[in-house]
Amino acid sequence: MDVDKRLSTSCIYRLALYERYISSLDRARDEYVSSQELGDVTGHSAAQARKDLTHGISLGEPGKGYEIRKLEAMLTRIFGKEKHRNVILVGVGNLGLALILYKGLSLQQFRIVAAFDRDVTKIGKYVEDVLIRDIRNLESVVTRTGADMAIVCVPAQSAQQIVDGLVSAGIKAILNFAPAGRLTVPEGIVLQNVDMSIELDRLYYLLKAQDDSCANS
Amino acid sequence: MDVDKRLSTSCIYRLALYERYISSLDRARDEYVSSQELGDVTGHSAAQARKDLTHGISLGEPGKGYEIRKLEAMLTRIFGKEKHRNVILVGVGNLGLALILYKGLSLQQFRIVAAFDRDVTKIGKYVEDVLIRDIRNLESVVTRTGADMAIVCVPAQSAQQIVDGLVSAGIKAILNFAPAGRLTVPEGIVLQNVDMSIELDRLYYLLKAQDDSCANS
Repeated sequence: MDVDKRLSTSCIYRLALYERYISSLDRARDEYVSSQELGDVTGHSAAQARKDLTHGISLGEPGKGYEIRKLEAMLTRIFGKEKHRNVILVGVGNLGLALILYKGLSLQQFRIVAAFDRDVTKIGKYVEDVLIRDIRNLESVVTRTGADMAIVCVPAQSAQQIVDGLVSAGIKAILNFAPAGRLTVPEGIVLQNVDMSIELDRLYYLLKAQDDSCANS
Repeated sequence: MDVDKRLSTSCIYRLALYERYISSLDRARDEYVSSQELGDVTGHSAAQARKDLTHGISLGEPGKGYEIRKLEAMLTRIFGKEKHRNVILVGVGNLGLALILYKGLSLQQFRIVAAFDRDVTKIGKYVEDVLIRDIRNLESVVTRTGADMAIVCVPAQSAQQIVDGLVSAGIKAILNFAPAGRLTVPEGIVLQNVDMSIELDRLYYLLKAQDDSCANS
């Protein structure tokens, strides 16, 4: 299928929300889903949902909506949910712990297969069924598990060094939670940052924009 | 200043990154910053940076770039960094702990002034200088602290109830980390969701898109 490679990050986000919503539907009862319903899921319009879904393949039938079975197949192809994805995690502090214990990941076919830390009081312990390993064994574990994605939850000052180590070990995609400013990766490696303070900035911007528009109206 | 109220979430994200970068510059040395430099910060192009910055006010000078002092003033107006923002947090599990301990928030003028839980073994304890309070005292604490933003890190099944309580207590903007599907808020309340599994979905999508384009090239 010819999925557009240049989907915007906001579009990918909405597509992931449609995917979650569709997988929550009762397949025995529902066969179609309307663009209005999909728009509601993301808080955007029906028109936005229709636009998003033309990025994949046009499946809507006038007056009926989208056939759930086909829509699901399309979204599965985009997000590759056909099989489990092995992910490793580096930095078992509070955030790392929260992510290992977070049930939502395994629901979405992501599986944290190994965690790493350099704190000897943590190494060798289990968090549920995930063993905390010595960061010095990163390379051999990555090779053995075939993981190509990593989550980084280390302090800012260690982040670049850890990212370099992950790339050397063969990791291709990194989700970074360390508030480390500009991390660099070689071409061909995907790096995404999640910065809590930026999420709050964004929230504050939306709050303020709303206050202003109330004040003006 | 006439800031466009309908900035996209991706644009807000990039503006926040510019803001972080600019505040890290040495003001004694640098007076101007180029759009190329700003593009590098977000991993986008110089053209994208110029486009983003026209949403605020056009400050660029041909051949010189953006005057840092003016750019900073503009970004401060967008993100309202003139004063501290009081934020409360509900749910002191691993993620809640990580957020309270996360230094990046206070660097960006957000201050967690109170944390809430319903676990009696946690209530009354301090995490650094933040007291964990009984969730039943939410309303009085919100009134007293004047907080209008809240972070929700409770389990999915409690999230809607907590969000309803926050809205009753006078909270206007909520950053939700509970993987709770569709939470609803009344009109006028801002709700943003951060879903870790969607971040991984997005990462995986980018990884796959890159693999495909390598395979095709």
